[in-house]
Amino acid sequence: MGRVTVRRRASHLTAESTTTRPETLAVEEPLELRIDGTAITVTMRTPGSDVELAQGFLLTEGVIGGRDDIARVEYCRGARTNPGSLRSSPPEEDGLNTYNVLDVRLTPGVPMPDVDVTRNFYTTSSCGVCGKGSIDAIRQISRHSPGDDPTVVSAETLTAMPDQLRSAQRVFASTGGLHGAALFTADGTMLVVREDIGRHNAVDKVIGWAVENQRVPLTGTVLLVSGRASFELTQKAVMAGIPLLAAVSAPSSLAVDLATQAGLTLVAFLRGQSMNVYSRPDRVEH
Amino acid sequence: MGRVTVRRRASHLTAESTTTRPETLAVEEPLELRIDGTAITVTMRTPGSDVELAQGFLLTEGVIGGRDDIARVEYCRGARTNPGSLRSSPPEEDGLNTYNVLDVRLTPGVPMPDVDVTRNFYTTSSCGVCGKGSIDAIRQISRHSPGDDPTVVSAETLTAMPDQLRSAQRVFASTGGLHGAALFTADGTMLVVREDIGRHNAVDKVIGWAVENQRVPLTGTVLLVSGRASFELTQKAVMAGIPLLAAVSAPSSLAVDLATQAGLTLVAFLRGQSMNVYSRPDRVEH
Repeated sequence: MGRVTVRRRASHLTAESTTTRPETLAVEEPLELRIDGTAITVTMRTPGSDVELAQGFLLTEGVIGGRDDIARVEYCRGARTNPGSLRSSPPEEDGLNTYNVLDVRLTPGVPMPDVDVTRNFYTTSSCGVCGKGSIDAIRQISRHSPGDDPTVVSAETLTAMPDQLRSAQRVFASTGGLHGAALFTADGTMLVVREDIGRHNAVDKVIGWAVENQRVPLTGTVLLVSGRASFELTQKAVMAGIPLLAAVSAPSSLAVDLATQAGLTLVAFLRGQSMNVYSRPDRVEH
Repeated sequence: MGRVTVRRRASHLTAESTTTRPETLAVEEPLELRIDGTAITVTMRTPGSDVELAQGFLLTEGVIGGRDDIARVEYCRGARTNPGSLRSSPPEEDGLNTYNVLDVRLTPGVPMPDVDVTRNFYTTSSCGVCGKGSIDAIRQISRHSPGDDPTVVSAETLTAMPDQLRSAQRVFASTGGLHGAALFTADGTMLVVREDIGRHNAVDKVIGWAVENQRVPLTGTVLLVSGRASFELTQKAVMAGIPLLAAVSAPSSLAVDLATQAGLTLVAFLRGQSMNVYSRPDRVEH
């Protein structure tokens, strides 16, 4: 599973010269996630921590409540195109394991999600397709509510976190191509950091680590992301019971609205010594 | 449709002080895309240019070959949850138009895609789920091949493009929250620029503009994106017949592999006076 980076030759042009040199690239490969043999989703991800990725995805989509809801996870051998997919399938492949298909067996009694994969959970809401409905859907399916979490984090602890994340992002340093996510305790201790070509995948891996270690709900923690705070990332924080989401870049309107309604503290533009707090500022001590 | 930004109050913390002030945020709202009444996908996007977004998505997924394959596009009134979706549906809503559901009627004779929405086209490939298969799938469904496009662009023209894009990104300037994409001619004239909370959406809007204006295949053009070059964005460039894709940030392994095999010139780390060219460097004149 060491396929996190690869080398490719590239031409490097500057105003003065052209040189050809090997460049290190972040690996991007598809991962198909199956539940009890049925394909649920395919995501483009950086290989590694795939089981965490699956566990984090299933938790933040409301399929599982914790590690006990999963009986077994395994890579499928001989993964090939499902019958009935968009393109016609060739004869069965040679059974080689691409390590790109992961099958999750749910514990008996855990309901199989009723898959309508044109939609995520957040769009199956009572008002049709709109932002308010997306927020209501999260509130309906979430098993945790960050609203009552009494965690308080000092502004100094928060402003130190982006440097800690960057120092730990080893692959980003060599490729410039990966998003990072990390979990911290309220006193600034970094618990886990994960990188991925997709920012939602980096967060799923971090939350999947917490599922694996039976730490959900993640009360008393801070989730830091290296990019922007979208609705989807805010959803993941809420679903995992995280009280504070911090982003280095901008938040979206729907991220702020969801955070406000869920009682999540949303910090963004966390850069240098400054930050904006968009919701529940009582958790940030100045 | 002027819902591109909204204002929300936020606490702004610096080392010295805390102030409360209104902040401008990029709007994020779901868009459900239907073909002939059947939901195909839901994407979180910034409202505006929705018809272009739909046209670009359908072209780059291989559903349509151009504008003539679409008979009609309209916003649905009274959009509500489909029967059979993940959550139970409430009684029908009041018929208010959220402007978040777009129905595309295909021209008679254009085949309805055989929807298996656990997968995108790129994962329905002959070798199962792997990067090589994803690339082969694009090659099978693409109606255009950038390989034979004789376009040559000077390095100076390329290095001037990111500043042109940034100047044109009006919403990014106020929110810091939007990805940008722009099309240029080989002499550096900017044809169109679009912004979105999702980088794939910004590219779909740009390509949808070209569909609307009957300019596909986009021979002789350069597509510039404000972020990274993923497989998905590279797929979109290939499907639209664009010969040169330039990114301000890093490319992924699979983006480079697809560009190499499709004969697309892939430029990344386009910053200041320098750039890396990962494939078909003959199109960049130094």
